[in-house]
Amino acid sequence: MANQNKPKILAQGARLVYQKGFNHTGIGEILKAANVPKGSFYHYFSSKEDFGIELIDYMAKWAASVGQAALTDPSASPLARLKNYFRAYAKRFEQNGYQGGCPVGNLCQEMSDQSERFRRNLEAILQQMGEKISICLQQARDQGEIRAGLDPETTARFIVSAWQGSLLQAKAAKSREALDVFEQMVFEQLLKTPPSASQPNL
Amino acid sequence: MANQNKPKILAQGARLVYQKGFNHTGIGEILKAANVPKGSFYHYFSSKEDFGIELIDYMAKWAASVGQAALTDPSASPLARLKNYFRAYAKRFEQNGYQGGCPVGNLCQEMSDQSERFRRNLEAILQQMGEKISICLQQARDQGEIRAGLDPETTARFIVSAWQGSLLQAKAAKSREALDVFEQMVFEQLLKTPPSASQPNL
Repeated sequence: MANQNKPKILAQGARLVYQKGFNHTGIGEILKAANVPKGSFYHYFSSKEDFGIELIDYMAKWAASVGQAALTDPSASPLARLKNYFRAYAKRFEQNGYQGGCPVGNLCQEMSDQSERFRRNLEAILQQMGEKISICLQQARDQGEIRAGLDPETTARFIVSAWQGSLLQAKAAKSREALDVFEQMVFEQLLKTPPSASQPNL
Repeated sequence: MANQNKPKILAQGARLVYQKGFNHTGIGEILKAANVPKGSFYHYFSSKEDFGIELIDYMAKWAASVGQAALTDPSASPLARLKNYFRAYAKRFEQNGYQGGCPVGNLCQEMSDQSERFRRNLEAILQQMGEKISICLQQARDQGEIRAGLDPETTARFIVSAWQGSLLQAKAAKSREALDVFEQMVFEQLLKTPPSASQPNL
């Protein structure tokens, strides 16, 4: 049974930290929720910070899994895959009553100034998110689905920012409006060739 | 002297909450930093939450003041005013070593799920930020500085999201790259009239 304690601690830790933040969640509270003896925490983690570093990885995998199927769907075009990727997160967020938001973004906000180890690990995950989107945009550009003048890497970086901020606004408003605005602005304005550009004489 | 205690508590509270978050900052710590007697807190605020509500207003005014001069500069065009507005924040953030970010965005992230009063007040401030930008975009559109097909209100909402997320990424990376990407993507891609579309107006 003992080797099931670590996954239980991480699962309950992820749930509580997602709700309350890292600093505001106590180790005792996590162990109680995981139904694990108090002394066992330091058997698995040498400090709360070490636990936090493993938690980042755990939460990032959990977050990535939400959009993974949509992003790699072989039956959809690159641009449709990207749209469905964000829709998968929007749906999950809506089901969750617009609570929580992005677990990685939340920890960036809370911890980037407080722990250099947290910061480096979180930054790497945002980079990975950007790289996935960049690959999809590259394919969309190759197939003529998006404006040729857009650099996939820079655009992906911008889309990550816009998405994180849209989650923040939706969380504050407890409404999907900011997510709809994101989809409309990214997919119908930013990436799309405006009608007037393709038909200069109209 | 007593009537100077409240501003001192708010100023030190804002500084500490900006660094550490609301939940992680104790009242005792704020009073110590403000050099104010312990008993006096409840003379001015009936609870920590009431203090937080006044703090939101205090922090929002502090945040708004950074970009105000740029946004209302009568010598600049609407689009130049908007660009200088974000540059004023980027400069301040850079001077601060990319620590902190947007105090309003931080509290949205931390408190929107935990206090309905916080949430409503924070949401209103994000709305106000959007309205200021929307007015500027409306003027930019009237002067032909941005694409005619963009709705100022929706675009402003999106820009607020993109900005909040760019601050988050810059905070995580401790670098201005995400802010440069924001300026490039918003002002050279999203708002700009593509060359072929501007032809009919010449």
